[in-house]
Amino acid sequence: MANTKAKLKLIPLGGLQEIGKNMLVVEYKDTIIVIDCGLMFPDEGMLGIDLVIPDISYLLKNKEKVKGIILTHGHEDHIGALPYVLPQINVPLYGTKLTLGLVENKLKEHTTIPEVTMNVIKPRDVVKLGDFEVEFIKTNHSIADSVGLAIHTPVGTVVHTGDFKIDYQPIDGELIDLHRFAELGKKGVLVMLADSTNVEREGYSMSESTMGNSFTELFSNAKQRILVATFASNIHRIQQVINASINCGRKVAISGRSMVNVINVASELGYLTIPDNVLIEIDNIDKYPPEKITIITTGSQGEAMSALTRMATSSHRKVDIVPGDTVIISATPVPGNEKLVSRVINQLFKRGADVIYEALADVHVSGHAYQEELKLLQALVKPKFFVPVHGEYRHLIQHAQLAEKMGVPKENIFIADNGTVLEFTKDKGRINGTVMAGRVLVDGLGVGDVGNIVLRDRKHLSQDGLIVVVVTLNKESGSVVAGPDIISRGFVYVRESEDLMEEAKSVIKDALMECEEKNITEWGTIKTYIKDNLKDFIYQKTKRNPMILPIIMEI
Amino acid sequence: MANTKAKLKLIPLGGLQEIGKNMLVVEYKDTIIVIDCGLMFPDEGMLGIDLVIPDISYLLKNKEKVKGIILTHGHEDHIGALPYVLPQINVPLYGTKLTLGLVENKLKEHTTIPEVTMNVIKPRDVVKLGDFEVEFIKTNHSIADSVGLAIHTPVGTVVHTGDFKIDYQPIDGELIDLHRFAELGKKGVLVMLADSTNVEREGYSMSESTMGNSFTELFSNAKQRILVATFASNIHRIQQVINASINCGRKVAISGRSMVNVINVASELGYLTIPDNVLIEIDNIDKYPPEKITIITTGSQGEAMSALTRMATSSHRKVDIVPGDTVIISATPVPGNEKLVSRVINQLFKRGADVIYEALADVHVSGHAYQEELKLLQALVKPKFFVPVHGEYRHLIQHAQLAEKMGVPKENIFIADNGTVLEFTKDKGRINGTVMAGRVLVDGLGVGDVGNIVLRDRKHLSQDGLIVVVVTLNKESGSVVAGPDIISRGFVYVRESEDLMEEAKSVIKDALMECEEKNITEWGTIKTYIKDNLKDFIYQKTKRNPMILPIIMEI
Repeated sequence: MANTKAKLKLIPLGGLQEIGKNMLVVEYKDTIIVIDCGLMFPDEGMLGIDLVIPDISYLLKNKEKVKGIILTHGHEDHIGALPYVLPQINVPLYGTKLTLGLVENKLKEHTTIPEVTMNVIKPRDVVKLGDFEVEFIKTNHSIADSVGLAIHTPVGTVVHTGDFKIDYQPIDGELIDLHRFAELGKKGVLVMLADSTNVEREGYSMSESTMGNSFTELFSNAKQRILVATFASNIHRIQQVINASINCGRKVAISGRSMVNVINVASELGYLTIPDNVLIEIDNIDKYPPEKITIITTGSQGEAMSALTRMATSSHRKVDIVPGDTVIISATPVPGNEKLVSRVINQLFKRGADVIYEALADVHVSGHAYQEELKLLQALVKPKFFVPVHGEYRHLIQHAQLAEKMGVPKENIFIADNGTVLEFTKDKGRINGTVMAGRVLVDGLGVGDVGNIVLRDRKHLSQDGLIVVVVTLNKESGSVVAGPDIISRGFVYVRESEDLMEEAKSVIKDALMECEEKNITEWGTIKTYIKDNLKDFIYQKTKRNPMILPIIMEI
Repeated sequence: MANTKAKLKLIPLGGLQEIGKNMLVVEYKDTIIVIDCGLMFPDEGMLGIDLVIPDISYLLKNKEKVKGIILTHGHEDHIGALPYVLPQINVPLYGTKLTLGLVENKLKEHTTIPEVTMNVIKPRDVVKLGDFEVEFIKTNHSIADSVGLAIHTPVGTVVHTGDFKIDYQPIDGELIDLHRFAELGKKGVLVMLADSTNVEREGYSMSESTMGNSFTELFSNAKQRILVATFASNIHRIQQVINASINCGRKVAISGRSMVNVINVASELGYLTIPDNVLIEIDNIDKYPPEKITIITTGSQGEAMSALTRMATSSHRKVDIVPGDTVIISATPVPGNEKLVSRVINQLFKRGADVIYEALADVHVSGHAYQEELKLLQALVKPKFFVPVHGEYRHLIQHAQLAEKMGVPKENIFIADNGTVLEFTKDKGRINGTVMAGRVLVDGLGVGDVGNIVLRDRKHLSQDGLIVVVVTLNKESGSVVAGPDIISRGFVYVRESEDLMEEAKSVIKDALMECEEKNITEWGTIKTYIKDNLKDFIYQKTKRNPMILPIIMEI
């Protein structure tokens, strides 16, 4: 069956040397499957950008080969780019029930999505896609129904962990399928790709079920309402909040659009067990005494428009934080969100709430494997080749070092980047070139129409604002008919800077006069004269560099 | 001596409900002293701002009362606003030798500073200023030569801890003066103000001297060059890096302007002990084998222009990171800097360096007291009234709770804000109104000329850019003579959006025609027509909201 000359290619299009927008291409001859299709949230340099998705040029070029997109779980960094990718490559999706439920829910919000084939799979299912047999393996993670993969290819088996942790006491009772990983390891695994997120943390991650005790204790101390903010997708966390609420006779209200959506999907599909008479409408919370109310809400990342932030700033239509409320932030700030979260905590304290967060109590456990868990998987799977994935460079290199210590030869470990082509035969693996990869910025309806020039301009505008100079010239003589007029925005408070602006005008007039004297009539040159002279003047007066935009009108 | 009706006023002008720009006014009848004069670094919403200083309107209004500015230590958030405050209020400064040495060094960089009187004080010194006797008390902190204060006033003693920790094994051998705090407590302290920074941390902070062992161990494993990035002001940390270098026969080179400056000042004043033949010029590092070189550098916060960041990105003129270098980041990221630091770590790893940072080893200890240290000070000083300072709201409230647990009656604890007037007599304390306080933004040469409107415009410009519309109208008839012309920046990549821009032009033409038909000649109204129509059109087409700037020229 195997063409000994054909090579297996693994090509990450996202998620390498970054956290987010995970996407991996697995290719053999005429078969391509895509693992995950995630988005990334913009970093602070990407001004005005809503989200970032992988560049899929390589997939578009090889469109006819793509047999399907496999989804390991329902987090945004694994499914979030689907609304942008599916209109370009409409192939069948494969994922567990909850994952596809969340995808369906997400696609509903977009109007331009074609009809999509969704194939619900269960752990231990095997799906044949072209030359591959894709096997799904149960894992544990901070969202229910996550899976890892074993992709059986003509040159050997590829194990992809997906995002995972090892939880011996998971809330749904379903342990990560260590047996299957062990069996695969015994039979021989060509290459493993594994989650690197928590490689810097020593020891083992705590079981999600330990949160139950934390909630029970915190709930027993709460005298009035309890609000719990967590990730909407963390179904098991939500289940434990509901359980703790039931135990102390509290009704539960849900706040925040994504929280309502996910809880609906998860309940319908049987991933949340909520007895009748527990859930109440958020409109009805005041019908119960405060000590009988729990509110589960979005906003654990301090997002400006989230329900919790609006409650904390008295701009939520239905819930106001009042003294005596207990607010539990059951999450850790994603890097970059620390200050936002801190701000919300301050606001909640100011309103008199008792705020409980990571610095003060055990109110969160991670969904990603720590060092000892990563080692366990290395020990079971014993891959010939190893590719650390899902992490910044520092995570990848430390995961590589960990694998090396566990016995994978250094030359068999590859630190890749998005676009790197990893090529494997039965015995050999190597990096063989790169394909187009990168990030596509989504801003409003625009996908990819904001690039570096636009971002550079936004950055420039954000730092010192702009000065627009308009002058009207006579078409024939080139002499000034009207202006120069100056308008500035984001530069200085205009009323207090009238003198500066008047001086600036004479600088421009002088520049225009110089042009006339030198018989310069070419617009571009005149604009450069205006720009350079004004720039120097403004910098000398203010030590600022606003964008200067000269506009010449002609009549 | 004491007028029983006169009240002691404590008025924080900075540092309350925020971290940074510390400044406290202590006032009694015709005497005002100011404690600290710090700056704050701008938060992410203050686009283009260089730094933030306290609003000193209250001091300017009471200028003749101000007897002096007392500096507790030489960190930027305690001395950084002096270059902006001294030209407005030139009063004598009081501080320890190192603190004033750092102030002198800082003032040199500003040309507009008047001659300033600097009074060097030592711990246990007492200075009489108007109605006050100000006593200086030795403390420990992450900078040498820090002091707390006891201000003896006609109505009682005010203890101000300054930033502090309790270090039983400080590098300079000088313990925080617990005896004096105890004596003051025994005699009776009216009110204590104490550092709240680390109130969320349980237990005790580690001694600065524990870093010595860490460095010894890390240094013994390093095969080639060692680079240590830390805060320039952390003299004792630097001393320990130098000691560890000497122990393994390494020469030490210094990199980064502020590091060079501070090490010069500290050496001259005797706060750093560096034997001859240890320091070498950075230009000469290649004259020694790599295993004989240590480089102490700035950049522990990942600052874009810092020495370490430039080394990591190959844009440093003298040092390039090479495989085998060991880079120790001996600091913790200040909130908000996490992503910057993470980026530098990735870049260093990519260049082949062995990077050691907080997540991987004990390479930093905090300079602020943990809970048990704060309790010790409460126990010794036993203040009648308590005001937590130096912290965000969440820190202040938790410090208040800690003090309450230690026996300060709840009604004697005040959570203040900048501008709050705290009024004390011998027996009573209360909040009595507020004075003007807030933040003054420094941008280039401008102090206070950038306010909310300018920031709002910068924010708007940074998100979706701008569209400038220019049209020239006939002065008499009001009809269009030239234009409309459209120029955009930071909005879309223009070449790919020509159609959109053409359509936008016709939208504007239609709006102008409507104005003509309706006989609208008032410019403001015409501009509003253009703006509203274009805004709707652009949002509908792109879901973006660029700033729209209509300009009408008249001939």
